Amino acid sequence: MSANDHGPQGADHVEIVEVGPRDGLQNESTVLSVDDRIRLIDRAVAAGVRRIEAVSFVNPKRVPQMAGAEEIMAGVRREPGVSHIGLVLNRRGLERAVAAGVSEVNVAVPATDGFCTRNQGCTVDEMLDALADIDTDLQGTGIPLSVTVSTAFGCPFDGEVPAGQVVEVVNRITGTSAVEIALADTIGVGVPREVSELLRAVGAVADGRTLRCHFHNTRNTGYANAMAAVDAGVRVLDSSLGGFGGCPFAPAATGNIATEDLLYMLHRSGLHTGVSLSGAAELGAWMGERLDKQPPAYLGRAGAFPA
Amino acid sequence: MSANDHGPQGADHVEIVEVGPRDGLQNESTVLSVDDRIRLIDRAVAAGVRRIEAVSFVNPKRVPQMAGAEEIMAGVRREPGVSHIGLVLNRRGLERAVAAGVSEVNVAVPATDGFCTRNQGCTVDEMLDALADIDTDLQGTGIPLSVTVSTAFGCPFDGEVPAGQVVEVVNRITGTSAVEIALADTIGVGVPREVSELLRAVGAVADGRTLRCHFHNTRNTGYANAMAAVDAGVRVLDSSLGGFGGCPFAPAATGNIATEDLLYMLHRSGLHTGVSLSGAAELGAWMGERLDKQPPAYLGRAGAFPA
Repeated sequence: MSANDHGPQGADHVEIVEVGPRDGLQNESTVLSVDDRIRLIDRAVAAGVRRIEAVSFVNPKRVPQMAGAEEIMAGVRREPGVSHIGLVLNRRGLERAVAAGVSEVNVAVPATDGFCTRNQGCTVDEMLDALADIDTDLQGTGIPLSVTVSTAFGCPFDGEVPAGQVVEVVNRITGTSAVEIALADTIGVGVPREVSELLRAVGAVADGRTLRCHFHNTRNTGYANAMAAVDAGVRVLDSSLGGFGGCPFAPAATGNIATEDLLYMLHRSGLHTGVSLSGAAELGAWMGERLDKQPPAYLGRAGAFPA
Repeated sequence: MSANDHGPQGADHVEIVEVGPRDGLQNESTVLSVDDRIRLIDRAVAAGVRRIEAVSFVNPKRVPQMAGAEEIMAGVRREPGVSHIGLVLNRRGLERAVAAGVSEVNVAVPATDGFCTRNQGCTVDEMLDALADIDTDLQGTGIPLSVTVSTAFGCPFDGEVPAGQVVEVVNRITGTSAVEIALADTIGVGVPREVSELLRAVGAVADGRTLRCHFHNTRNTGYANAMAAVDAGVRVLDSSLGGFGGCPFAPAATGNIATEDLLYMLHRSGLHTGVSLSGAAELGAWMGERLDKQPPAYLGRAGAFPA
């Protein structure tokens, strides 16, 4: 199975990559149990999600929210056509991911040294070397690789990120077996016109790789950015149930764009996702209960339209 | 002075109509004093706002939040090129508005009988007759008229609103002296593609009138809708400092798109508004203090980028 198997099913189909179990939870002060996370993943799949960022193989001592990746992968219901993605940042993480039986590996490579150093403890160049190592170790496993370029629209430490810098990172990624490259607005600073421009620049060098986008709604531009990506032809979008998530380097900020709110916008635009809006809204509310927090998502409060 | 005097100053200029003092406050449980509202209006103008929905000439017994319109108009600092708009729903309101010295009159005409009956106590037909009366009384005053078509994207009572129904209302409005017609997503249900389509349909019959848009972020589509309007050529947008506002018929819902968040998106897109982002963010925070509520706007929490 390659990431492309999950790709466009036609121009009016948008594939949702549910990142709630990983990006949504990794910075929450409340740590969800392994059982709760298994339930979240299985329920998201039952609601129609076909790709889900289920676990992270980072050091559980550094990110206790993500502990228990092996137990989660052993506990979730597996079914054909559903991809459980594991985030991996080094060879040790990949070893664990392969042993745990992930369907797909995602590696995050920041576009900026400022973020990479503080978040991953190495320079971008060193991270690209780590990616090459991971890619080598992946050979023969049959597990597809996707790579997310973090801080592609701006960095909390380095500031503005020129498109050329992102293009350079993407160029290096095309030297690997990655079937998909995601552009991530990690701190939620981008605006729709930047999305269109960066996609154009990156599209020119992506060498046939599927492009995916990952937006945060930190400054209320996340949904406009998602729509700009769709208008530019992107058909794979990350989103997080309830709109949870965020960045430790932007503590006051809200999280990822919410799956339920994204579905509302896409479905009402005549686009299909295969994911149930009511199912997603219920799960977003459930996450709010478990985390004892009002979800940033609005659908649960406002209700769908027509009701 | 006509509304068109405030119109496009070039393709990269977007005019902000600040609606915080009226739409932003009219449903808040905390009633701001006349003095606070004068301060809000004067400070918005000092931040660069050139058109501001300052007051409403509805019955203060029904909407106590809007009491004191005359005192506000007498108290605000007037200066050339700045338009203080008064909302008017009938001849009696217009009489008060003219006497109070508004720069501009705005009349709201819902596209649906369900909303019109409950909000304004009459059918859409009757409201269009009231508009014609107001227009007659306006002759010779030199005060420009703009008309807002409420519930243009959906109605909490009648449900879906066909574009043809909005076009019909707009057709009737073009029989008046209105220089500008606003399409309002009163309950925040629209999505960008509907914005493009409705603007196309309405543009074909608007007979040279300036088109303006008014969005609520009730389901997180407000900023995407604003961008779709700009992409369709609209250069006048309503927004509310702090993102306050809302609709009594959608009590759990958040309000208008926030001026500071809209400015962030527009300015970063290379568009100009003449309004200071930091000034708007300060005022949104100030409104939050006066209303003792966290502003729905995100800019104040996340900060601008680059900082």
